Amino acid sequence: MRIGAHWLQRRLRLLSAVCRRGMAKSKFEYVRDFEAPDTCLPNCWVVVRVDGRNFHRFSEKHNFEKPNDIRALQLMNRCAQNVMEELKDICLAYGQSDEYSFVFHKKSSWYKRRASKFMTHVVSQLASSYVFYWKEFFPNQPILYPPGFDGRVILYPSEQNLKDYLSWRQADCHINNLYNTVFWMLVQRGGLTPAQAQKRLQGTLAADKNEILFSEFNINYNNEPLMYRKGSVILKKKVNEISTKVIKLKGEEEIEVEVSRSRNQFAILHCDIISDTFWEENPDIFSGES
Amino acid sequence: MRIGAHWLQRRLRLLSAVCRRGMAKSKFEYVRDFEAPDTCLPNCWVVVRVDGRNFHRFSEKHNFEKPNDIRALQLMNRCAQNVMEELKDICLAYGQSDEYSFVFHKKSSWYKRRASKFMTHVVSQLASSYVFYWKEFFPNQPILYPPGFDGRVILYPSEQNLKDYLSWRQADCHINNLYNTVFWMLVQRGGLTPAQAQKRLQGTLAADKNEILFSEFNINYNNEPLMYRKGSVILKKKVNEISTKVIKLKGEEEIEVEVSRSRNQFAILHCDIISDTFWEENPDIFSGES
Amino acid sequence: MRIGAHWLQRRLRLLSAVCRRGMAKSKFEYVRDFEAPDTCLPNCWVVVRVDGRNFHRFSEKHNFEKPNDIRALQLMNRCAQNVMEELKDICLAYGQSDEYSFVFHKKSSWYKRRASKFMTHVVSQLASSYVFYWKEFFPNQPILYPPGFDGRVILYPSEQNLKDYLSWRQADCHINNLYNTVFWMLVQRGGLTPAQAQKRLQGTLAADKNEILFSEFNINYNNEPLMYRKGSVILKKKVNEISTKVIKLKGEEEIEVEVSRSRNQFAILHCDIISDTFWEENPDIFSGES
Amino acid sequence: MRIGAHWLQRRLRLLSAVCRRGMAKSKFEYVRDFEAPDTCLPNCWVVVRVDGRNFHRFSEKHNFEKPNDIRALQLMNRCAQNVMEELKDICLAYGQSDEYSFVFHKKSSWYKRRASKFMTHVVSQLASSYVFYWKEFFPNQPILYPPGFDGRVILYPSEQNLKDYLSWRQADCHINNLYNTVFWMLVQRGGLTPAQAQKRLQGTLAADKNEILFSEFNINYNNEPLMYRKGSVILKKKVNEISTKVIKLKGEEEIEVEVSRSRNQFAILHCDIISDTFWEENPDIFSGES
Repeated sequence: MRIGAHWLQRRLRLLSAVCRRGMAKSKFEYVRDFEAPDTCLPNCWVVVRVDGRNFHRFSEKHNFEKPNDIRALQLMNRCAQNVMEELKDICLAYGQSDEYSFVFHKKSSWYKRRASKFMTHVVSQLASSYVFYWKEFFPNQPILYPPGFDGRVILYPSEQNLKDYLSWRQADCHINNLYNTVFWMLVQRGGLTPAQAQKRLQGTLAADKNEILFSEFNINYNNEPLMYRKGSVILKKKVNEISTKVIKLKGEEEIEVEVSRSRNQFAILHCDIISDTFWEENPDIFSGES
Repeated sequence: MRIGAHWLQRRLRLLSAVCRRGMAKSKFEYVRDFEAPDTCLPNCWVVVRVDGRNFHRFSEKHNFEKPNDIRALQLMNRCAQNVMEELKDICLAYGQSDEYSFVFHKKSSWYKRRASKFMTHVVSQLASSYVFYWKEFFPNQPILYPPGFDGRVILYPSEQNLKDYLSWRQADCHINNLYNTVFWMLVQRGGLTPAQAQKRLQGTLAADKNEILFSEFNINYNNEPLMYRKGSVILKKKVNEISTKVIKLKGEEEIEVEVSRSRNQFAILHCDIISDTFWEENPDIFSGES
Repeated sequence: MRIGAHWLQRRLRLLSAVCRRGMAKSKFEYVRDFEAPDTCLPNCWVVVRVDGRNFHRFSEKHNFEKPNDIRALQLMNRCAQNVMEELKDICLAYGQSDEYSFVFHKKSSWYKRRASKFMTHVVSQLASSYVFYWKEFFPNQPILYPPGFDGRVILYPSEQNLKDYLSWRQADCHINNLYNTVFWMLVQRGGLTPAQAQKRLQGTLAADKNEILFSEFNINYNNEPLMYRKGSVILKKKVNEISTKVIKLKGEEEIEVEVSRSRNQFAILHCDIISDTFWEENPDIFSGES
Repeated sequence: MRIGAHWLQRRLRLLSAVCRRGMAKSKFEYVRDFEAPDTCLPNCWVVVRVDGRNFHRFSEKHNFEKPNDIRALQLMNRCAQNVMEELKDICLAYGQSDEYSFVFHKKSSWYKRRASKFMTHVVSQLASSYVFYWKEFFPNQPILYPPGFDGRVILYPSEQNLKDYLSWRQADCHINNLYNTVFWMLVQRGGLTPAQAQKRLQGTLAADKNEILFSEFNINYNNEPLMYRKGSVILKKKVNEISTKVIKLKGEEEIEVEVSRSRNQFAILHCDIISDTFWEENPDIFSGES
């Protein structure tokens, strides 16, 4: 019966190939040792900052309003909130323009504090959210291509260092927004070309820019929307939700019982976080154990 | 003129606040020094591997077919290709299931070889692409929530180490796919519960699994689709595209000219990359300077 | 003049070789880029711990007394003091047995906080001091071979973490010294072999060991020398030394002037550093700016 | 029996204190988690380079001859050999002036390839050797204080990178030695002050320096001692030493047997390692498995 013999031979060859392949895996597994550990130092605040990649081009292609597109800012806020909903141990987030910073609690032991886990989970969640929630904020404007983001991890040993980091980002927001506000006024209402506007602003101090806004365009910069001037802070609060539920035990009457469920609630604020007031009014932002 | 004086006072206070804020930035800028450099060792291949976060749940919620959902695999391939289109210096990508590995050329100096740049750009581009291209592959099934991914960077000093890494992933693909193929046969056609199927397979070798497939379900595992058994390799080729263009110089007749443009072309293969044949047939994968 | 021509040719060849060599350097200089930065996170305490390499053998070859050789301990203290004299920004050192920990101030920016600088400077200074000061402590016993040490760097973000580190080392000193004290009593006065002594102590608690010392050898462990039980702490104090100097300005009479010079003074203590008392009594150990 | 009760109380207090202390250790042990892993990437050559700390001052205090003190160079060579005798897996060392580079084999798994182990063991062994062997090379000149060294670790993925590193150091040796040779000629025999000599050499090329040596001091630089111009390479060879030993088995006659013992032998060379010749003549330097 040659066919049977043939079949058997084929099966044997198959089996041996599979066995070889099976062994192959362990033969190759040494490559795992090349993965370097990147644990974050314990007892430090872990900040992940995310930036839009090449968002200058992205905002042009999608006709973002200048200097601030409220839809784009609110989309970023929505995405940042999603990051906080999905990932553990983030106690605060701060965002402005196309960047967002997420603060993981210094006691967090999420994924053994591996830096790559912190940054890739944050950045991928924000990126997929950006496309997912796009149409809620740009209902009449389809997204043309998937945007990229970059991320980094920074450690801060003390609460003061962490607050100074957040102050640095908010000061940056202020400086950029003041500049952009004047720049686009000069272009949009002053009739200057971008190059002329840039030249006009070269070397000016904050006071000078305020003066231009006030005297030439009758704008008091301090009356500009807070979200533009201060950026956005997202806080998380654990709340106990109590609802009533009707249950019926076998052979008994229906009864109403109270059911309590712990849930995260998010607050988006646009306030000064440089002065102490904010931290005094929110004493438990950093107190919560992870 | 008390009103004027008042106004002036207010302006001065405003200006001084702005000045203070301006100085504030430089006062806070010391926090930049806390950012640690994470340059990848030169002359090493840089692999970024991306994995779906909690994709067990994601695939259930979106009714992925078991053991392989061809739409989901092709979506991953599409996203990986987008990563290669957008990011420089990737010479090859290999994917299986919900993971994908991207190989940056050992000579790449993209973003000064910073590990965080490599991994966050890859993972965010893949994540935003996943939502962006979803509807092309799941036209009748809306995506329910934005998925997350994790990523890591691994360095390989030699070409042999790199090939062994890719072999390791393909051997892993083989082992998982063989297991999953038998497991879901036992459940879907054999009528076993998942727990029973798992018990049945406990301790079986590759040969035993092949035998079950063959004798009980008349399936020769080697005839299963290559994409399931081998995963997907994406290669990039620079091609010169030559097109003809009609131009007309002032005061002359129209003429046809040939225009040459360098463009990346991508090939998605489902072949064995463990044996030497693949590398012999594609000698220039790793040769290209970045 | 053939000889001249010959000579000229030789000179030219020499020159060109030298030029080539000169260029060679820049051709090779790319290898510097392989040096990875290893900056310590700012605002963290930097601890360098040094351990004797293979000191079990070293102490046998040099007939160290058991369980404690006072000469060897004092030699280590002398070396540690030399490390503090030579290197900047060390505010405290703690040693026991053949190990020593050095605490660099969290504000130190010595050598840009490079970890390799911290550890290699400490370990090499300690190692060369060990041979250098040997004869002061072992006048009748020549050193037989140069000993090795290993070192490591550990960062502590908070003062509490740092104190807990030091407490950990002192608790370790206590545990080891109690064990060794009983072990060597059993061997030296109890007539047990080392193997028998080890077996006798297996599973015993601290209380049991105290009991053996007390009931069998009439030793109250608490009366053992503090240096053995607590290890050694070295503190540094900046002192102003005022001396009088006679100077004579041209054409004037000699006068006496007071000259003030800042100098480091070292105190070696053998006290408890686990309880708060020590830190309360030495409030300025960690306060000094680097 | 009040005394007994008192004694018991005291003992109990002692015991409880000891127990507390015992527990204390585990309470503090969390500080170990702050130690960061620093494994060197596998399959890379590990270079540890050691430099004398502040050796300008050290050489002045010990009256080193200029531009080269042969005793100091030979002492460094002796110390480097001691490092190679004591530490595993070093396949080659190269030194010049007050620096030495040690190459650990790329397959070495010594101390799990921890960078801190590599550098601190090397630097401490070299430092203690320096004091230990001093009197062999400076018999009439006591060492005045213990010198310090610094060290660093650098990884090289390919053999070519490693050879280029060594070439870089030898090219550096050449450049420095040529400069120093002319500089000190100008000072010692030419009667220039150091400042004048420095000025004279500013902007000169290698050819110019050769010319000065030749025309003004009748020195052909190429005839200067090889050790000064090329530095020192230390190679290690495993040799089988065969000796005869007389043994006598119980109740039998004495017989002679051959005993073979593997031993490391060291060769110190002063040759060019930039050209291929050296590597062709020593093909097994890098071949040996660790």
